[in-house]
Amino acid sequence: MALGLVRKARAAHQPGMQAGAEAMKKPAWVIEKEQARRAAAAETVWLFGLHAVRDALLNPARERLRLIVTRNALEKLADAVAQSGIAPEICDARKFTAPLDEGSVHQGAALEVKPLDWGSLADVALGAGPMPPRIVLLDRVTDPHNVGAILRSAEVFGARAVVGLQRHGAPETGALAKTASGALERQPYLRVRNLADAMEDLRGMGYVVLGLDGDGETDIETALEGRRDRAVALVLGAEGPGLRERTRETCDALVRIDAAGGFGSLNVSNAAAVALYAARGRG
Amino acid sequence: MALGLVRKARAAHQPGMQAGAEAMKKPAWVIEKEQARRAAAAETVWLFGLHAVRDALLNPARERLRLIVTRNALEKLADAVAQSGIAPEICDARKFTAPLDEGSVHQGAALEVKPLDWGSLADVALGAGPMPPRIVLLDRVTDPHNVGAILRSAEVFGARAVVGLQRHGAPETGALAKTASGALERQPYLRVRNLADAMEDLRGMGYVVLGLDGDGETDIETALEGRRDRAVALVLGAEGPGLRERTRETCDALVRIDAAGGFGSLNVSNAAAVALYAARGRG
Repeated sequence: MALGLVRKARAAHQPGMQAGAEAMKKPAWVIEKEQARRAAAAETVWLFGLHAVRDALLNPARERLRLIVTRNALEKLADAVAQSGIAPEICDARKFTAPLDEGSVHQGAALEVKPLDWGSLADVALGAGPMPPRIVLLDRVTDPHNVGAILRSAEVFGARAVVGLQRHGAPETGALAKTASGALERQPYLRVRNLADAMEDLRGMGYVVLGLDGDGETDIETALEGRRDRAVALVLGAEGPGLRERTRETCDALVRIDAAGGFGSLNVSNAAAVALYAARGRG
Repeated sequence: MALGLVRKARAAHQPGMQAGAEAMKKPAWVIEKEQARRAAAAETVWLFGLHAVRDALLNPARERLRLIVTRNALEKLADAVAQSGIAPEICDARKFTAPLDEGSVHQGAALEVKPLDWGSLADVALGAGPMPPRIVLLDRVTDPHNVGAILRSAEVFGARAVVGLQRHGAPETGALAKTASGALERQPYLRVRNLADAMEDLRGMGYVVLGLDGDGETDIETALEGRRDRAVALVLGAEGPGLRERTRETCDALVRIDAAGGFGSLNVSNAAAVALYAARGRG
Protein backbone atom coordinates (compact mmCIF):
# COMPACT_ATOMS: atom_id res chain seq x y z
CA MET A 1 0.00 0.00 0.00
CA ALA A 2 2.63 2.51 1.03
CA LEU A 3 4.49 2.34 -2.18
CA GLY A 4 5.14 4.72 -4.98
CA LEU A 5 7.36 6.48 -7.40
CA VAL A 6 8.05 10.04 -8.28
CA ARG A 7 9.52 10.96 -11.59
CA LYS A 8 12.32 13.49 -11.39
CA ALA A 9 12.43 15.57 -14.52
CA ARG A 10 15.90 16.98 -15.07
CA ALA A 11 16.33 20.13 -17.11
CA ALA A 12 18.00 18.21 -19.94
CA HIS A 13 14.77 16.55 -21.01
CA GLN A 14 12.15 19.03 -20.07
CA PRO A 15 9.85 19.57 -23.01
CA GLY A 16 10.49 22.79 -24.85
CA MET A 17 14.06 23.25 -23.63
CA GLN A 18 15.53 22.50 -27.07
CA ALA A 19 13.00 24.54 -28.96
CA GLY A 20 15.33 27.52 -29.55
CA ALA A 21 18.09 28.14 -32.10
CA GLU A 22 19.08 24.50 -32.26
CA ALA A 23 15.67 23.57 -33.58
CA MET A 24 16.14 25.88 -36.57
CA LYS A 25 19.17 23.95 -37.88
CA LYS A 26 18.57 20.26 -37.14
CA PRO A 27 15.68 18.22 -38.50
CA ALA A 28 13.08 17.26 -35.94
CA TRP A 29 13.95 13.57 -35.88
CA VAL A 30 17.59 14.31 -35.02
CA ILE A 31 16.53 16.56 -32.17
CA GLU A 32 14.07 13.98 -30.90
CA LYS A 33 16.74 11.29 -30.95
CA GLU A 34 19.16 13.50 -29.04
CA GLN A 35 16.50 14.42 -26.53
CA ALA A 36 15.57 10.80 -26.00
CA ARG A 37 19.21 9.83 -25.46
CA ARG A 38 19.76 12.63 -22.97
CA ALA A 39 16.50 11.80 -21.23
CA ALA A 40 17.42 8.14 -20.95
CA ALA A 41 20.75 9.07 -19.41
CA ALA A 42 19.38 11.60 -16.93
CA GLU A 43 16.06 10.04 -16.03
CA THR A 44 15.68 8.80 -12.52
CA VAL A 45 12.71 7.77 -10.44
CA TRP A 46 12.17 8.25 -6.72
CA LEU A 47 10.62 5.16 -5.21
CA PHE A 48 9.16 5.62 -1.78
CA GLY A 49 7.44 3.67 0.95
CA LEU A 50 8.93 0.76 2.87
CA HIS A 51 7.46 -1.82 0.51
CA ALA A 52 8.62 -0.29 -2.75
CA VAL A 53 12.05 0.61 -1.39
CA ARG A 54 12.60 -2.88 -0.01
CA ASP A 55 11.53 -4.55 -3.29
CA ALA A 56 13.92 -2.33 -5.26
CA LEU A 57 16.80 -2.80 -2.79
CA LEU A 58 16.45 -6.57 -3.15
CA ASN A 59 16.09 -6.50 -6.95
CA PRO A 60 19.60 -7.15 -8.36
CA ALA A 61 18.55 -5.61 -11.69
CA ARG A 62 17.81 -2.19 -10.14
CA GLU A 63 20.43 0.54 -10.51
CA ARG A 64 20.26 2.46 -7.21
CA LEU A 65 21.52 6.00 -6.83
CA ARG A 66 20.54 7.43 -3.42
CA LEU A 67 18.76 6.10 -0.37
CA ILE A 68 17.28 8.64 2.03
CA VAL A 69 15.86 7.15 5.24
CA THR A 70 14.90 8.03 8.78
CA ARG A 71 16.57 6.05 11.58
CA ASN A 72 13.28 4.32 12.20
CA ALA A 73 12.86 3.24 8.55
CA LEU A 74 16.50 2.16 8.36
CA GLU A 75 15.92 -0.24 11.22
CA LYS A 76 13.04 -1.84 9.35
CA LEU A 77 15.02 -2.03 6.11
CA ALA A 78 18.35 -3.03 7.68
CA ASP A 79 18.55 -6.44 6.00
CA ALA A 80 17.68 -5.13 2.54
CA VAL A 81 20.06 -2.17 2.88
CA ALA A 82 22.90 -4.47 3.92
CA GLN A 83 22.20 -6.82 1.04
CA SER A 84 22.13 -3.99 -1.51
CA GLY A 85 25.39 -2.47 -0.28
CA ILE A 86 24.09 1.11 -0.68
CA ALA A 87 25.20 3.75 1.86
CA PRO A 88 22.04 5.26 3.39
CA GLU A 89 21.69 9.00 4.02
CA ILE A 90 20.06 9.39 7.41
CA CYS A 91 17.48 12.13 7.55
CA ASP A 92 15.26 13.66 10.21
CA ALA A 93 11.62 12.59 9.90
CA ARG A 94 10.39 16.20 10.28
CA LYS A 95 12.42 17.52 7.34
CA PHE A 96 12.50 14.65 4.93
CA THR A 97 14.69 15.91 2.09
CA ALA A 98 13.82 13.50 -0.74
CA PRO A 99 12.17 15.35 -3.66
CA LEU A 100 8.78 13.67 -3.42
CA ASP A 101 5.34 14.93 -4.35
CA GLU A 102 3.47 16.44 -1.46
CA GLY A 103 1.27 13.92 0.25
CA SER A 104 3.46 10.95 -0.69
CA VAL A 105 3.26 8.39 2.09
CA HIS A 106 6.99 7.74 2.17
CA GLN A 107 7.18 6.09 5.63
CA GLY A 108 10.64 7.59 6.01
CA ALA A 109 12.17 5.83 3.03
CA ALA A 110 12.97 7.07 -0.47
CA LEU A 111 15.22 5.47 -3.04
CA GLU A 112 16.39 7.12 -6.25
CA VAL A 113 16.70 4.54 -9.01
CA LYS A 114 17.05 4.25 -12.76
CA PRO A 115 14.08 2.78 -14.58
CA LEU A 116 14.63 -0.91 -15.20
CA ASP A 117 16.20 -1.83 -18.53
CA TRP A 118 14.41 -4.86 -19.92
CA GLY A 119 16.48 -4.94 -23.11
CA SER A 120 15.10 -4.84 -26.64
CA LEU A 121 11.66 -5.99 -27.72
CA ALA A 122 13.32 -8.75 -29.75
CA ASP A 123 15.25 -10.04 -26.72
CA VAL A 124 12.08 -10.26 -24.66
CA ALA A 125 9.84 -11.53 -27.46
CA LEU A 126 12.19 -14.27 -28.67
CA GLY A 127 13.52 -15.51 -25.33
CA ALA A 128 12.90 -19.15 -24.39
CA GLY A 129 10.01 -20.08 -22.11
CA PRO A 130 7.84 -23.01 -21.13
CA MET A 131 4.72 -21.70 -22.90
CA PRO A 132 4.04 -20.07 -26.26
CA PRO A 133 4.73 -16.38 -25.64
CA ARG A 134 2.11 -13.68 -25.08
CA ILE A 135 2.77 -9.94 -25.29
CA VAL A 136 0.40 -7.05 -24.49
CA LEU A 137 0.70 -3.83 -26.49
CA LEU A 138 -0.99 -0.64 -25.31
CA ASP A 139 -2.04 2.00 -27.82
CA ARG A 140 -2.03 5.35 -25.99
CA VAL A 141 -3.11 3.92 -22.65
CA THR A 142 -1.83 6.63 -20.33
CA ASP A 143 -3.66 6.04 -17.06
CA PRO A 144 -1.09 4.76 -14.54
CA HIS A 145 -3.72 2.83 -12.56
CA ASN A 146 -4.76 0.91 -15.62
CA VAL A 147 -1.20 0.20 -16.75
CA GLY A 148 -0.22 -0.85 -13.22
CA ALA A 149 -3.13 -3.30 -13.07
CA ILE A 150 -2.22 -4.61 -16.53
CA LEU A 151 1.38 -5.25 -15.41
CA ARG A 152 -0.02 -7.25 -12.52
CA SER A 153 -2.30 -9.37 -14.73
CA ALA A 154 0.49 -9.81 -17.29
CA GLU A 155 2.68 -11.30 -14.56
CA VAL A 156 -0.07 -13.66 -13.41
CA PHE A 157 -0.71 -14.92 -16.94
CA GLY A 158 3.01 -15.19 -17.69
CA ALA A 159 3.13 -12.60 -20.49
CA ARG A 160 6.61 -11.90 -21.82
CA ALA A 161 6.12 -8.15 -21.78
CA VAL A 162 3.79 -5.21 -21.66
CA VAL A 163 4.66 -2.70 -24.36
CA GLY A 164 3.55 0.92 -24.18
CA LEU A 165 4.41 4.10 -26.03
CA GLN A 166 7.28 6.42 -25.08
CA ARG A 167 5.00 9.38 -25.65
CA HIS A 168 1.31 8.95 -24.86
CA GLY A 169 2.22 6.04 -22.60
CA ALA A 170 2.43 5.73 -18.83
CA PRO A 171 5.84 6.40 -17.31
CA GLU A 172 6.86 4.71 -14.06
CA THR A 173 5.08 6.78 -11.40
CA GLY A 174 3.85 6.33 -7.87
CA ALA A 175 0.33 5.47 -8.93
CA LEU A 176 1.58 2.94 -11.45
CA ALA A 177 3.92 1.22 -8.99
CA LYS A 178 1.22 1.15 -6.35
CA THR A 179 -1.39 -0.44 -8.61
CA ALA A 180 1.19 -2.86 -10.00
CA SER A 181 1.61 -4.15 -6.44
CA GLY A 182 5.18 -5.39 -6.89
CA ALA A 183 4.84 -6.41 -10.54
CA LEU A 184 6.82 -3.34 -11.66
CA GLU A 185 10.02 -4.94 -10.32
CA ARG A 186 9.34 -8.24 -12.09
CA GLN A 187 7.20 -7.80 -15.20
CA PRO A 188 9.04 -6.55 -18.31
CA TYR A 189 7.54 -3.18 -19.27
CA LEU A 190 8.98 -1.72 -22.46
CA ARG A 191 8.17 1.57 -24.08
CA VAL A 192 8.56 2.00 -27.80
CA ARG A 193 8.52 5.00 -30.09
CA ASN A 194 6.10 3.60 -32.64
CA LEU A 195 3.50 0.94 -31.92
CA ALA A 196 2.82 -0.09 -35.54
CA ASP A 197 6.57 -0.67 -36.06
CA ALA A 198 6.70 -2.83 -32.93
CA MET A 199 3.69 -4.79 -34.18
CA GLU A 200 5.38 -5.35 -37.57
CA ASP A 201 8.56 -6.46 -35.78
CA LEU A 202 6.60 -8.97 -33.73
CA ARG A 203 4.82 -10.28 -36.80
CA GLY A 204 8.24 -10.71 -38.41
CA MET A 205 9.25 -12.85 -35.40
CA GLY A 206 6.23 -15.10 -35.96
CA TYR A 207 3.67 -13.47 -33.67
CA VAL A 208 -0.05 -13.44 -34.46
CA VAL A 209 -1.07 -9.82 -33.82
CA LEU A 210 -4.66 -9.43 -32.55
CA GLY A 211 -6.31 -6.06 -31.89
CA LEU A 212 -9.06 -5.97 -29.25
CA ASP A 213 -12.08 -4.16 -30.60
CA GLY A 214 -15.72 -4.25 -29.50
CA ASP A 215 -16.72 -4.47 -33.17
CA GLY A 216 -14.16 -7.16 -33.97
CA GLU A 217 -15.35 -9.57 -36.69
CA THR A 218 -14.65 -12.67 -34.60
CA ASP A 219 -14.23 -13.48 -30.92
CA ILE A 220 -10.73 -13.96 -29.56
CA GLU A 221 -11.06 -17.68 -28.85
CA THR A 222 -12.33 -18.47 -32.34
CA ALA A 223 -9.49 -16.40 -33.81
CA LEU A 224 -6.98 -18.54 -31.91
CA GLU A 225 -8.53 -21.91 -32.71
CA GLY A 226 -5.75 -24.23 -33.82
CA ARG A 227 -3.16 -21.51 -33.21
CA ARG A 228 -2.74 -21.59 -29.44
CA ASP A 229 0.78 -22.88 -29.84
CA ARG A 230 1.68 -19.72 -31.77
CA ALA A 231 3.18 -16.60 -30.24
CA VAL A 232 0.40 -14.03 -29.74
CA ALA A 233 0.47 -10.25 -29.35
CA LEU A 234 -2.68 -8.60 -27.95
CA VAL A 235 -3.18 -4.92 -28.73
CA LEU A 236 -5.49 -2.78 -26.58
CA GLY A 237 -6.45 0.87 -27.00
CA ALA A 238 -7.43 3.55 -24.54
CA GLU A 239 -11.04 3.73 -23.38
CA GLY A 240 -13.03 6.01 -25.63
CA PRO A 241 -10.81 6.38 -28.66
CA GLY A 242 -9.84 2.67 -28.81
CA LEU A 243 -7.23 1.60 -31.36
CA ARG A 244 -5.91 4.22 -33.74
CA GLU A 245 -6.44 3.73 -37.47
CA ARG A 246 -2.85 2.72 -38.24
CA THR A 247 -2.85 0.32 -35.27
CA ARG A 248 -6.05 -1.34 -36.52
CA GLU A 249 -4.63 -1.69 -40.02
CA THR A 250 -1.47 -3.33 -38.68
CA CYS A 251 -3.35 -6.10 -36.84
CA ASP A 252 -3.72 -9.59 -38.33
CA ALA A 253 -7.30 -9.52 -37.07
CA LEU A 254 -9.59 -7.40 -34.92
CA VAL A 255 -11.18 -9.57 -32.24
CA ARG A 256 -13.80 -9.04 -29.57
CA ILE A 257 -14.35 -10.51 -26.14
CA ASP A 258 -17.38 -12.77 -26.11
CA ALA A 259 -19.89 -11.31 -23.65
CA ALA A 260 -23.49 -12.10 -22.82
CA GLY A 261 -24.64 -8.68 -21.62
CA GLY A 262 -23.81 -6.64 -24.63
CA PHE A 263 -24.22 -3.39 -22.73
CA GLY A 264 -21.47 -1.17 -21.37
CA SER A 265 -17.78 -1.79 -21.94
CA LEU A 266 -14.92 -3.29 -19.97
CA ASN A 267 -12.34 -1.13 -18.30
CA VAL A 268 -9.07 -1.52 -20.26
CA SER A 269 -7.29 -3.39 -17.47
CA ASN A 270 -10.23 -5.80 -17.14
CA ALA A 271 -10.23 -6.25 -20.92
CA ALA A 272 -6.50 -7.02 -20.83
CA ALA A 273 -6.95 -9.60 -18.06
CA VAL A 274 -9.79 -11.34 -19.89
CA ALA A 275 -7.89 -11.25 -23.20
CA LEU A 276 -4.78 -12.76 -21.60
CA TYR A 277 -6.94 -15.46 -20.05
CA ALA A 278 -8.82 -16.15 -23.27
CA ALA A 279 -5.58 -16.30 -25.27
CA ARG A 280 -3.54 -18.31 -22.77
CA GLY A 281 -1.29 -20.95 -24.29
CA ARG A 282 -2.19 -24.54 -23.64
CA GLY A 283 0.97 -26.42 -24.52
CA MET B 1 -15.63 11.25 -15.97
CA ALA B 2 -17.16 14.09 -14.03
CA LEU B 3 -19.44 11.92 -12.06
CA GLY B 4 -19.80 11.04 -8.46
CA LEU B 5 -21.79 10.52 -5.35
CA VAL B 6 -21.59 11.75 -1.84
CA ARG B 7 -23.21 9.86 0.97
CA LYS B 8 -25.13 12.06 3.36
CA ALA B 9 -25.02 10.58 6.83
CA ARG B 10 -27.99 11.74 8.85
CA ALA B 11 -27.73 11.81 12.62
CA ALA B 12 -30.16 8.92 12.93
CA HIS B 13 -27.69 6.38 11.65
CA GLN B 14 -24.35 7.78 12.70
CA PRO B 15 -22.31 5.08 14.40
CA GLY B 16 -22.18 5.41 18.14
CA MET B 17 -25.35 7.51 18.44
CA GLN B 18 -27.32 4.66 19.99
CA ALA B 19 -24.58 3.48 22.28
CA GLY B 20 -25.98 5.17 25.38
CA ALA B 21 -28.75 4.18 27.80
CA GLU B 22 -30.81 2.47 25.10
CA ALA B 23 -28.03 -0.02 24.51
CA MET B 24 -28.20 -1.14 28.14
CA LYS B 25 -31.77 -2.36 27.79
CA LYS B 26 -32.19 -3.80 24.31
CA PRO B 27 -30.22 -6.72 22.91
CA ALA B 28 -27.71 -5.80 20.23
CA TRP B 29 -29.61 -7.42 17.38
CA VAL B 30 -32.72 -5.35 18.10
CA ILE B 31 -30.70 -2.16 18.11
CA GLU B 32 -28.99 -3.14 14.88
CA LYS B 33 -32.30 -3.84 13.22
CA GLU B 34 -33.70 -0.49 14.33
CA GLN B 35 -30.61 1.32 13.18
CA ALA B 36 -30.74 -0.38 9.80
CA ARG B 37 -34.42 0.52 9.37
CA ARG B 38 -33.83 4.14 10.30
CA ALA B 39 -30.76 4.28 8.06
CA ALA B 40 -32.65 2.86 5.11
CA ALA B 41 -35.38 5.46 5.56
CA ALA B 42 -33.04 8.41 5.97
CA GLU B 43 -30.21 7.48 3.66
CA THR B 44 -29.71 9.66 0.67
CA VAL B 45 -26.87 10.07 -1.75
CA TRP B 46 -25.72 13.24 -3.48
CA LEU B 47 -24.85 12.52 -7.09
CA PHE B 48 -22.86 15.22 -8.80
CA GLY B 49 -21.38 16.04 -12.16
CA LEU B 50 -23.33 16.59 -15.38
CA HIS B 51 -22.97 12.96 -16.45
CA ALA B 52 -24.13 11.33 -13.22
CA VAL B 53 -26.94 13.82 -12.69
CA ARG B 54 -28.21 13.39 -16.25
CA ASP B 55 -28.10 9.55 -15.99
CA ALA B 56 -30.04 9.66 -12.72
CA LEU B 57 -32.58 12.21 -14.01
CA LEU B 58 -33.32 9.95 -16.96
CA ASN B 59 -33.49 6.75 -14.89
CA PRO B 60 -37.19 6.17 -14.12
CA ALA B 61 -36.23 3.92 -11.19
CA ARG B 62 -34.40 6.71 -9.34
CA GLU B 63 -36.21 8.47 -6.50
CA ARG B 64 -35.07 12.09 -6.73
CA LEU B 65 -35.24 14.53 -3.84
CA ARG B 66 -33.46 17.78 -4.67
CA LEU B 67 -31.68 19.17 -7.71
CA ILE B 68 -29.26 22.03 -7.16
CA VAL B 69 -27.86 23.56 -10.35
CA THR B 70 -26.18 26.64 -11.72
CA ARG B 71 -27.94 28.44 -14.60
CA ASN B 72 -25.19 27.21 -16.88
CA ALA B 73 -25.59 23.56 -15.85
CA LEU B 74 -29.39 23.83 -16.07
CA GLU B 75 -29.07 24.84 -19.69
CA LYS B 76 -27.05 21.74 -20.44
CA LEU B 77 -29.44 19.49 -18.52
CA ALA B 78 -32.66 21.17 -19.68
CA ASP B 79 -34.02 18.13 -21.55
CA ALA B 80 -33.32 15.70 -18.71
CA VAL B 81 -34.73 18.09 -16.08
CA ALA B 82 -37.91 18.54 -18.11
CA GLN B 83 -38.30 14.80 -18.58
CA SER B 84 -37.81 14.09 -14.87
CA GLY B 85 -40.32 16.74 -13.79
CA ILE B 86 -38.19 17.85 -10.82
CA ALA B 87 -38.14 21.54 -9.85
CA PRO B 88 -34.51 22.73 -9.95
CA GLU B 89 -33.07 25.03 -7.26
CA ILE B 90 -30.92 27.59 -9.04
CA CYS B 91 -27.70 28.39 -7.26
CA ASP B 92 -24.78 30.74 -7.80
CA ALA B 93 -21.66 28.98 -9.09
CA ARG B 94 -19.45 30.73 -6.53
CA LYS B 95 -21.42 29.55 -3.51
CA PHE B 96 -22.64 26.14 -4.54
CA THR B 97 -24.77 25.01 -1.62
CA ALA B 98 -25.02 21.25 -2.17
CA PRO B 99 -23.36 19.31 0.69
CA LEU B 100 -20.54 17.75 -1.35
CA ASP B 101 -17.06 16.70 -0.36
CA GLU B 102 -14.45 19.35 -0.98
CA GLY B 103 -12.81 18.90 -4.34
CA SER B 104 -15.85 17.24 -5.90
CA VAL B 105 -15.96 18.21 -9.56
CA HIS B 106 -19.69 18.97 -9.56
CA GLN B 107 -19.81 21.04 -12.77
CA GLY B 108 -22.64 23.01 -11.22
CA ALA B 109 -25.01 20.08 -10.81
CA ALA B 110 -25.91 18.03 -7.74
CA LEU B 111 -28.87 15.71 -7.30
CA GLU B 112 -29.97 14.18 -4.01
CA VAL B 113 -31.36 10.71 -4.57
CA LYS B 114 -32.29 7.56 -2.71
CA PRO B 115 -30.13 4.55 -3.39
CA LEU B 116 -31.71 2.34 -6.03
CA ASP B 117 -33.93 -0.44 -4.74
CA TRP B 118 -33.25 -3.59 -6.75
CA GLY B 119 -35.70 -5.70 -4.76
CA SER B 120 -34.88 -8.94 -3.00
CA LEU B 121 -32.08 -11.31 -3.88
CA ALA B 122 -34.71 -13.92 -4.81
CA ASP B 123 -36.45 -11.52 -7.23
CA VAL B 124 -33.20 -10.76 -9.00
CA ALA B 125 -31.83 -14.31 -8.88
CA LEU B 126 -34.96 -16.03 -10.14
CA GLY B 127 -36.04 -13.55 -12.80
CA ALA B 128 -36.29 -14.71 -16.40
CA GLY B 129 -33.48 -14.05 -18.84
CA PRO B 130 -32.05 -15.25 -22.13
CA MET B 131 -28.99 -16.92 -20.56
CA PRO B 132 -28.39 -19.09 -17.48
CA PRO B 133 -27.98 -16.57 -14.65
CA ARG B 134 -24.70 -15.49 -13.13
CA ILE B 135 -24.34 -13.64 -9.82
CA VAL B 136 -21.19 -12.18 -8.23
CA LEU B 137 -20.90 -12.17 -4.42
CA LEU B 138 -18.26 -10.07 -2.69
CA ASP B 139 -16.92 -11.13 0.71
CA ARG B 140 -15.73 -7.97 2.47
CA VAL B 141 -14.63 -6.19 -0.67
CA THR B 142 -14.75 -2.58 0.50
CA ASP B 143 -12.69 -0.66 -2.04
CA PRO B 144 -15.13 1.46 -4.08
CA HIS B 145 -12.87 1.47 -7.14
CA ASN B 146 -12.84 -2.31 -7.22
CA VAL B 147 -16.59 -2.61 -6.66
CA GLY B 148 -17.27 0.03 -9.31
CA ALA B 149 -15.13 -1.83 -11.84
CA ILE B 150 -16.87 -5.09 -10.92
CA LEU B 151 -20.31 -3.52 -11.53
CA ARG B 152 -19.08 -2.49 -14.93
CA SER B 153 -17.81 -5.97 -15.82
CA ALA B 154 -20.96 -7.56 -14.39
CA GLU B 155 -23.03 -5.45 -16.76
CA VAL B 156 -20.88 -6.39 -19.76
CA PHE B 157 -21.13 -10.11 -18.99
CA GLY B 158 -24.84 -9.87 -18.25
CA ALA B 159 -24.67 -10.87 -14.57
CA ARG B 160 -28.01 -10.70 -12.74
CA ALA B 161 -26.53 -8.94 -9.73
CA VAL B 162 -23.49 -8.02 -7.72
CA VAL B 163 -24.06 -8.77 -4.04
CA GLY B 164 -21.98 -7.16 -1.31
CA LEU B 165 -22.21 -6.87 2.45
CA GLN B 166 -24.16 -4.18 4.29
CA ARG B 167 -21.25 -3.79 6.66
CA HIS B 168 -17.75 -4.34 5.33
CA GLY B 169 -19.09 -3.66 1.86
CA ALA B 170 -18.83 -0.64 -0.41
CA PRO B 171 -21.69 1.87 -0.18
CA GLU B 172 -22.64 3.98 -3.18
CA THR B 173 -19.98 6.71 -3.21
CA GLY B 174 -18.43 9.11 -5.69
CA ALA B 175 -15.45 6.86 -6.33
CA LEU B 176 -17.71 3.85 -6.86
CA ALA B 177 -20.03 5.66 -9.27
CA LYS B 178 -17.10 7.10 -11.17
CA THR B 179 -15.37 3.73 -11.63
CA ALA B 180 -18.69 2.09 -12.50
CA SER B 181 -18.91 4.51 -15.44
CA GLY B 182 -22.71 4.47 -15.65
CA ALA B 183 -23.21 0.85 -14.59
CA LEU B 184 -24.42 1.99 -11.14
CA GLU B 185 -27.71 3.14 -12.72
CA ARG B 186 -28.21 -0.13 -14.59
CA GLN B 187 -26.50 -3.06 -12.87
CA PRO B 188 -28.35 -4.51 -9.86
CA TYR B 189 -26.16 -4.04 -6.77
CA LEU B 190 -27.60 -5.56 -3.61
CA ARG B 191 -26.18 -5.50 -0.13
CA VAL B 192 -26.99 -8.27 2.32
CA ARG B 193 -26.46 -8.68 6.02
CA ASN B 194 -24.91 -12.14 5.88
CA LEU B 195 -23.07 -13.56 2.90
CA ALA B 196 -23.23 -17.24 3.88
CA ASP B 197 -27.03 -16.96 4.27
CA ALA B 198 -27.28 -15.41 0.80
CA MET B 199 -25.14 -18.22 -0.59
CA GLU B 200 -27.39 -20.83 1.03
CA ASP B 201 -30.45 -19.06 -0.38
CA LEU B 202 -28.96 -19.11 -3.86
CA ARG B 203 -28.06 -22.78 -3.54
CA GLY B 204 -31.66 -23.42 -2.53
CA MET B 205 -32.77 -21.70 -5.74
CA GLY B 206 -30.58 -24.05 -7.78
CA TYR B 207 -27.38 -22.07 -8.06
CA VAL B 208 -23.95 -23.71 -8.16
CA VAL B 209 -21.90 -21.67 -5.69
CA LEU B 210 -18.19 -21.39 -6.59
CA GLY B 211 -15.63 -19.63 -4.41
CA LEU B 212 -12.61 -18.13 -6.17
CA ASP B 213 -9.41 -19.17 -4.40
CA GLY B 214 -5.82 -19.28 -5.62
CA ASP B 215 -5.46 -22.69 -3.98
CA GLY B 216 -8.76 -24.00 -5.37
CA GLU B 217 -8.67 -27.73 -6.07
CA THR B 218 -9.88 -27.36 -9.66
CA ASP B 219 -9.96 -24.61 -12.26
CA ILE B 220 -13.20 -22.77 -12.86
CA GLU B 221 -13.80 -24.11 -16.38
CA THR B 222 -13.31 -27.73 -15.33
CA ALA B 223 -15.67 -27.17 -12.40
CA LEU B 224 -18.35 -25.98 -14.84
CA GLU B 225 -17.90 -28.71 -17.43
CA GLY B 226 -21.33 -30.04 -18.33
CA ARG B 227 -22.98 -27.48 -15.99
CA ARG B 228 -22.82 -24.28 -18.04
CA ASP B 229 -26.58 -24.32 -18.39
CA ARG B 230 -26.87 -24.11 -14.57
CA ALA B 231 -27.24 -20.90 -12.59
CA VAL B 232 -23.83 -19.97 -11.15
CA ALA B 233 -22.83 -17.76 -8.23
CA LEU B 234 -19.19 -16.63 -8.09
CA VAL B 235 -17.82 -15.59 -4.70
CA LEU B 236 -14.74 -13.39 -4.44
CA GLY B 237 -12.90 -12.20 -1.35
CA ALA B 238 -10.88 -9.10 -0.60
CA GLU B 239 -7.25 -9.01 -1.63
CA GLY B 240 -5.06 -10.31 1.15
CA PRO B 241 -7.53 -12.05 3.44
CA GLY B 242 -9.45 -13.73 0.63
CA LEU B 243 -12.62 -15.66 1.49
CA ARG B 244 -13.51 -15.99 5.16
CA GLU B 245 -13.67 -19.46 6.69
CA ARG B 246 -17.46 -19.63 6.81
CA THR B 247 -17.68 -18.35 3.24
CA ARG B 248 -15.29 -21.06 2.05
CA GLU B 249 -17.24 -23.74 3.85
CA THR B 250 -20.49 -22.59 2.26
CA CYS B 251 -19.19 -22.94 -1.31
CA ASP B 252 -19.98 -26.00 -3.44
CA ALA B 253 -16.38 -25.88 -4.60
CA LEU B 254 -13.31 -23.67 -4.38
CA VAL B 255 -11.98 -22.95 -7.84
CA ARG B 256 -8.95 -21.19 -9.24
CA ILE B 257 -8.33 -19.21 -12.39
CA ASP B 258 -6.05 -21.12 -14.73
CA ALA B 259 -2.91 -19.03 -15.23
CA ALA B 260 0.42 -19.70 -16.89
CA GLY B 261 2.63 -17.36 -14.89
CA GLY B 262 1.93 -18.61 -11.42
CA PHE B 263 3.47 -15.53 -9.81
CA GLY B 264 1.66 -12.58 -8.30
CA SER B 265 -2.11 -12.37 -7.97
CA LEU B 266 -4.92 -10.71 -9.84
CA ASN B 267 -6.55 -7.56 -8.58
CA VAL B 268 -10.06 -8.50 -7.36
CA SER B 269 -11.85 -6.62 -10.15
CA ASN B 270 -9.66 -8.33 -12.76
CA ALA B 271 -10.33 -11.67 -11.09
CA ALA B 272 -14.09 -10.99 -11.21
CA ALA B 273 -13.94 -10.09 -14.92
CA VAL B 274 -11.97 -13.22 -15.78
CA ALA B 275 -14.24 -15.42 -13.63
CA LEU B 276 -17.38 -13.99 -15.29
CA TYR B 277 -15.82 -14.61 -18.68
CA ALA B 278 -14.68 -18.13 -17.80
CA ALA B 279 -18.11 -18.98 -16.35
CA ARG B 280 -20.19 -17.35 -19.05
CA GLY B 281 -23.26 -19.28 -20.09
CA ARG B 282 -23.31 -20.74 -23.55
CA GLY B 283 -26.91 -21.51 -24.17
